[in-house]
Amino acid sequence: MKKIMNEPNQIVTEMLDGFVAAKPGKVKRIPDTTVVTRKDSPIQNKVGIVSGGGSGHEPAHAGYIGKGMLDAAVAGEVFTSPTPDQVLEAIKAVDGGAGVLLVIKNYTGDVMNFDMAAELAEAEGIDVAQVVVNDDVAIDDVDGRRGVAGTVFVHKIAGAKAEAGASLEEVKNAAEKVIANVRSMGVALSPCVMPASGKPSFELGDDEMEVGIGIHGEPGTERKTLGTADEIAVELTNHILEDLPEAEEIAVMVNGMGATPEMELNLVNRKVQEILQEKGVKTYKTFVGEYMTSLEMAGCSVTLLNLDDELKELLDSPSDAPALRV
Amino acid sequence: MKKIMNEPNQIVTEMLDGFVAAKPGKVKRIPDTTVVTRKDSPIQNKVGIVSGGGSGHEPAHAGYIGKGMLDAAVAGEVFTSPTPDQVLEAIKAVDGGAGVLLVIKNYTGDVMNFDMAAELAEAEGIDVAQVVVNDDVAIDDVDGRRGVAGTVFVHKIAGAKAEAGASLEEVKNAAEKVIANVRSMGVALSPCVMPASGKPSFELGDDEMEVGIGIHGEPGTERKTLGTADEIAVELTNHILEDLPEAEEIAVMVNGMGATPEMELNLVNRKVQEILQEKGVKTYKTFVGEYMTSLEMAGCSVTLLNLDDELKELLDSPSDAPALRV
Repeated sequence: MKKIMNEPNQIVTEMLDGFVAAKPGKVKRIPDTTVVTRKDSPIQNKVGIVSGGGSGHEPAHAGYIGKGMLDAAVAGEVFTSPTPDQVLEAIKAVDGGAGVLLVIKNYTGDVMNFDMAAELAEAEGIDVAQVVVNDDVAIDDVDGRRGVAGTVFVHKIAGAKAEAGASLEEVKNAAEKVIANVRSMGVALSPCVMPASGKPSFELGDDEMEVGIGIHGEPGTERKTLGTADEIAVELTNHILEDLPEAEEIAVMVNGMGATPEMELNLVNRKVQEILQEKGVKTYKTFVGEYMTSLEMAGCSVTLLNLDDELKELLDSPSDAPALRV
Repeated sequence: MKKIMNEPNQIVTEMLDGFVAAKPGKVKRIPDTTVVTRKDSPIQNKVGIVSGGGSGHEPAHAGYIGKGMLDAAVAGEVFTSPTPDQVLEAIKAVDGGAGVLLVIKNYTGDVMNFDMAAELAEAEGIDVAQVVVNDDVAIDDVDGRRGVAGTVFVHKIAGAKAEAGASLEEVKNAAEKVIANVRSMGVALSPCVMPASGKPSFELGDDEMEVGIGIHGEPGTERKTLGTADEIAVELTNHILEDLPEAEEIAVMVNGMGATPEMELNLVNRKVQEILQEKGVKTYKTFVGEYMTSLEMAGCSVTLLNLDDELKELLDSPSDAPALRV
């Protein structure tokens, strides 16, 4: 499989340079790090929001940097957690005296390295709070659930709360509320290819799909015969609804895994909305596009977020993060 | 190759339903047509902007419907021009008495069908103007140049001009100014697959790329050994600059063809910006993402638009079109 790239071992640093070169008025890269922040960071007396993780999930995470969303994103190597020293650089870069919230996806490496960075930052006198996103219902064991596309809703809500001037504890509480109310599940029609190895992450037949995939090219929890768009929507949505607390109003995200045409995402969305309508659940807002990808994997995930008045207001508040298509 | 779909012959209508279901407060579908318009259409005394073409280019064209951009998009079957009666429906739906501009991509079928629709609309007393976008410099003969990603800039500028209250002639002039100043060129690393046939549009070796592709899965004007990101950026940018009138300030679009990870688009953007800087051309604004695709083709295009003060102001004016990531 083919990629547009130069040296594989330079891919992350070159990607970050290319990203910043596109938005020089909005973002900056902290020299000699893999940290990108808002151009106006640190913002005095605003809680800073830091997220990140391995690369390969673009537009996550740097695409969510902007007013009302992230203050900084830390990029690791492809599908590899950033190191604690890089996360620490991000924390220091966005600390404006009101503390910093780390939005972490539930992977062992990320949790460990972000936690270590938090300790180092606290030792330097910075207040740090952490939340761990675990929205992937493909894994039955809640402790083992991965953070996937639902993370984008955490960025949005926490970012909006911080922008509104809330305290670190209030911002953390809003993020925790999202985490308690968001669930995702995905399917893959194709693997992805690590830039360094050039090898597909798994093999899949022409009539097969992987159900319950994560965002690191890993196989899913089950391999099935490729379903129609409607069947895929039913499978993902029903699985999520079984796990999600009942709600009257929700936000929907139909997320492409990297190589899926938007046409196909719209087909899935069509059926997801039908299912929700039949069940009497009202959709407040829908997001269709590529928000949290896995390199060039073909497939999609569905994310549902239960909303209350506070979350609706925070979801609606403006943000200029480039990847937040609304 | 695999797709998430139901019946191939229902793919366009289901896609449109899925699109509208995601944004019910912003857009509506004209019943029994493939026309999607702003929810508040027609807007009295504002010039209406209609674009469209074959499906398979998502987020084009419906994703550009919104305040300050398109009033309506007409979808044909995949890679097939919409029929004149459908275009006529769009014109009628958005006519608020100030006339309607058709933004047409330079393909024989589109030009013919939109023109026929314009005649039918004029017979019904609606003022219609037309512009034809031909930004693809891969074709030497200017008359034969296809309309590709540069069309998005025409949507943006014409839409902003119309939103500001300009007359049909003024809106057309602004669109023509973009067309005179915009150039694009693309490469493909893979073909795409028509939903009905399931067959790839061409075959390409593991170490090959097609240079000078359009957006309908056709092969390029030249087949070459797969280059690095830098080599691809140099090839596309230099080819464009040879053709583009000299300018001091430009807008850049690095567009994914459907299956290209954003990581790779950022690598290309990095080098495009380097080249422009070396040549002393100032980048005013950059767009990186999927704007005008060719189903699940892997590859990218580069678009450069020369700017003057009027175009800068119109490019900057706000729009809520969902696919306009800025």
